[in-house]
Amino acid sequence: MRAIVIPRFGGPEVLELRQVPTPEPSRGEVRVRIRATALNRQDLLQIARPYPVPADAPQDVPGIEFAGEVDAVGHGVTELVAGDRVFGLAGGGAFAESIVVHARTLAKMPDGLSFTDAAAIPEAFITAYDAMVSQAHLAAGEVVLVHAVGSGVGTAAVQIARAIGASSIGTARTEDKLPRAQALGMTHGLLVPDGKFADEVLSLTGGRGADVILDLVGGSYITEDISCAAPRGRIAIVGLMGGVSAEVPINVVLYRRITIFGTAMRSRPLEEKIAAAQTFARQVVPLIAQGKLTAIVDRIFPLESAADALRHMAKNQSFGKVVLEI
Amino acid sequence: MRAIVIPRFGGPEVLELRQVPTPEPSRGEVRVRIRATALNRQDLLQIARPYPVPADAPQDVPGIEFAGEVDAVGHGVTELVAGDRVFGLAGGGAFAESIVVHARTLAKMPDGLSFTDAAAIPEAFITAYDAMVSQAHLAAGEVVLVHAVGSGVGTAAVQIARAIGASSIGTARTEDKLPRAQALGMTHGLLVPDGKFADEVLSLTGGRGADVILDLVGGSYITEDISCAAPRGRIAIVGLMGGVSAEVPINVVLYRRITIFGTAMRSRPLEEKIAAAQTFARQVVPLIAQGKLTAIVDRIFPLESAADALRHMAKNQSFGKVVLEI
Repeated sequence: MRAIVIPRFGGPEVLELRQVPTPEPSRGEVRVRIRATALNRQDLLQIARPYPVPADAPQDVPGIEFAGEVDAVGHGVTELVAGDRVFGLAGGGAFAESIVVHARTLAKMPDGLSFTDAAAIPEAFITAYDAMVSQAHLAAGEVVLVHAVGSGVGTAAVQIARAIGASSIGTARTEDKLPRAQALGMTHGLLVPDGKFADEVLSLTGGRGADVILDLVGGSYITEDISCAAPRGRIAIVGLMGGVSAEVPINVVLYRRITIFGTAMRSRPLEEKIAAAQTFARQVVPLIAQGKLTAIVDRIFPLESAADALRHMAKNQSFGKVVLEI
Repeated sequence: MRAIVIPRFGGPEVLELRQVPTPEPSRGEVRVRIRATALNRQDLLQIARPYPVPADAPQDVPGIEFAGEVDAVGHGVTELVAGDRVFGLAGGGAFAESIVVHARTLAKMPDGLSFTDAAAIPEAFITAYDAMVSQAHLAAGEVVLVHAVGSGVGTAAVQIARAIGASSIGTARTEDKLPRAQALGMTHGLLVPDGKFADEVLSLTGGRGADVILDLVGGSYITEDISCAAPRGRIAIVGLMGGVSAEVPINVVLYRRITIFGTAMRSRPLEEKIAAAQTFARQVVPLIAQGKLTAIVDRIFPLESAADALRHMAKNQSFGKVVLEI
């Protein structure tokens, strides 16, 4: 099969389209003929330097989400058959024509959903739902603050918030992303060229602050987050684009009884990945089928243009996901 | 009734023993004739400067925990009658002969427990149990790291850990506290004159780290905590003796999926204080009655020596609680 391979560390230009052995499913696993995959910042990190790729994934093929058709089924798999249209996450190896994953990490695609739309969904929607709802317990009536609202996770988060009855405040550093996020159900948009947003969030929430904060930026955003978190607010750290260190006023964390937690999907053990995938299948996929949640695709490239696609994503000007068609 | 009153802000020397009106219980409340109370760092803060005392407590009388006898019962109280021996927390006002609190914030004292022992229990054991078990979900087989292990909360925490089947590592800055904590069930003791403990905690846990960390110190301890928290570790911030700001490596929080949360009891609304008190009555008091958990009393002073007692606590040389007999 064809796959995008990392022959040495570097920028997207090092990537090579190569023939590699087609993998075979073991007990409990299925092979999926991938029709589309989508890009994530982790792909750039994995290309640039040694990266903790899970041991059950190929180390030299990027790509952590995909949509396609089941084309081979291992022993003991009862929930899927060849031909099923599926989508999901992988530890790596999705920039390829085929991938082998545990059957229970997959969800069936709703009828009528295209592969390129389906590929844009798993990482964004599983990450946002798992952090915001499963872990931070965002509830109807509450307010969630979503940073980098034009990102894949951001565009998923504001849609999920609307779908479950919560309000959302989104931040972006470029103005054109805010009206597009508003069209997806974001309640308020904040342009934050200087990374300051706490005062405006407090003002928008009548002084109370945000109940949940989905932070894809990190760095100095964490300090601002704490300044505008509601009493018993929950801050989910899902990204580090803005820096790996933060100054935390722990007196505020103590008095307001704030919770800060880090969440990463890729490093989880199999049983937790399955649990997140099954929650996605039961609680998120029906909302996609009903049209309440939509894949946000910025642009589609062919597999062989993976380097161009990654460079496009790295410019931070996309809205939603960058997809590779295979 | 007699009460210790804060006539103006300052050190313990400003306190005055005065006659003040005896409070009357309203609907759902009871009045307790206090026989003993215990000291907390919050008392020093409340004496020193404007402090956010809950609105339902006297602003000028310190004291947040007590043991005594019910001596008047408001309308609608069914769970307590005059003469019941009770102990619990208050928003303030416990350095006095009587206090009025909501009936459901109290627990009945086990038979045979003295008032001076009972007064040493509520703040330490409710805080430790609520943070470590109710919120951080410490389970049998897990490891909890307890800082300031000679404090009231620390001595409660290592006993609770032993009672529920968890291991504990305790830290202290003075050597004599460690053998005393070991006698209470602490599994390992670490002397940390320089505030560094992460390497030793990792070594004691085979490189895995502590599942739960009960941090009464704050400041730079938080950074060390994160370095020795297990994957999915939970760090409870319950004190700030070491400083109100911390440098947090959020990449580690993200990859290891660590949760950091602040917890304070006094600022909670009534329904949450009742919930914590009822959990204490059901899950902690039986262990006290069975002798599995013991009040740790450092020294007992009479009410009129409250200033001396506070000065004694401020020296940080006590082990367990400083109690006032009334």
